[in-house]
Amino acid sequence: MTINFQLMDNFSPTNRTQLHRIPQRATYEVSKIYGILDEALVCHVGFIVDNAPIVLPTTYARIANQVYLHGAQASRMLKSLKEGIQISMTVTLLDGLVFARSAFHHSMNYRSVVILGQAVEVTDLSEKQAALEAIVNHMQAGRMEHTRAPNPKELRATMVLRLELNEVSAKVRTGPPVDDEEDLSLPYWAGVVPVRLQAEQLQPAPGLSQHAQSLGIIPFSSNER
Amino acid sequence: MTINFQLMDNFSPTNRTQLHRIPQRATYEVSKIYGILDEALVCHVGFIVDNAPIVLPTTYARIANQVYLHGAQASRMLKSLKEGIQISMTVTLLDGLVFARSAFHHSMNYRSVVILGQAVEVTDLSEKQAALEAIVNHMQAGRMEHTRAPNPKELRATMVLRLELNEVSAKVRTGPPVDDEEDLSLPYWAGVVPVRLQAEQLQPAPGLSQHAQSLGIIPFSSNER
Repeated sequence: MTINFQLMDNFSPTNRTQLHRIPQRATYEVSKIYGILDEALVCHVGFIVDNAPIVLPTTYARIANQVYLHGAQASRMLKSLKEGIQISMTVTLLDGLVFARSAFHHSMNYRSVVILGQAVEVTDLSEKQAALEAIVNHMQAGRMEHTRAPNPKELRATMVLRLELNEVSAKVRTGPPVDDEEDLSLPYWAGVVPVRLQAEQLQPAPGLSQHAQSLGIIPFSSNER
Repeated sequence: MTINFQLMDNFSPTNRTQLHRIPQRATYEVSKIYGILDEALVCHVGFIVDNAPIVLPTTYARIANQVYLHGAQASRMLKSLKEGIQISMTVTLLDGLVFARSAFHHSMNYRSVVILGQAVEVTDLSEKQAALEAIVNHMQAGRMEHTRAPNPKELRATMVLRLELNEVSAKVRTGPPVDDEEDLSLPYWAGVVPVRLQAEQLQPAPGLSQHAQSLGIIPFSSNER
């Protein structure tokens, strides 16, 4: 079955991606899912080794309806994944801490995406290069033009895997705490403490030339990415 | 086998937690692992459903050598976990984006912990209450004293699971980019952009009384937690 996702507004829920608890928090909207994937910097990949799940953090990037993972050829994780085993790739953006009058209604505001599927090793050289460029540019837009591109030896040493977005869901909580009516007048602070990942002062590498220092890079604010 | 971890400085690596790639980034130090677990707010839990891994984000808290997860009794995730299946609970703190002169040496500074094991449902009421208090206080130290405690109905509606820290490893990258000698003079910026989760302006809940508003809460900075 081949579907051109560019033409779709929503992914189709499956048995595995259909949310049952608090279904109003679920979304299958392609644009929202792409937005979460593009904003986050780290994903958590789950896979099975010897009948037990392992979850590891790693970087990634999205191109069109695919996400790409990369790592050393020697990486045990990538070696396992390229066998075509089922994986779950999850991305979570924490947006706020939700304080309610009651302990029970404390919560978090967040946006998360869960992708289920099988990763495939990328062997085509131009796709591999495009994926690595996307991963570097995911750290800072346009960064690839201001680095030395990978040489053939580095390309050989790097494994790239592609995961098609097909079985995908997102879950989003926003807004204030939802307290029970009878708790509203309790003398406790309630509300949201918004949080976001922010850049702090740049730390130039030791030995960076004056010229290179002056180039700088623009610190990002995650909400503006 | 019962071990009093309070007396240990390090967890023992197992076949599954022994790091092979870049082993100098691995640590099994109890105090470092506790520190990462206490600082992060969200974990990613991986478990197997119908032979496929699923990774979901959730909150948690640590008490001594256990971590506790919680959720609605109706939660599919917790229902699966309480069957005593193997899980992987992973926590990641992103500390910086590492820009190198070469695309190849771009990296991230981070601290992550992977816990492998089986979660057990907590049925003892006082342990359950202590776990829920720890989860609320994990959002803000001392918060539990400024909320309405769970009533019996809420306690019944909530499931709490305990995961013993036994098979655990951490991985930490710090410091500047490591470029190849021949790239050091290239005219590209290199260094670290430190990042951290920061609180923004509080958003009091609609209808919050003047009195309750004046109580405020102290916005946290993740590095100071």
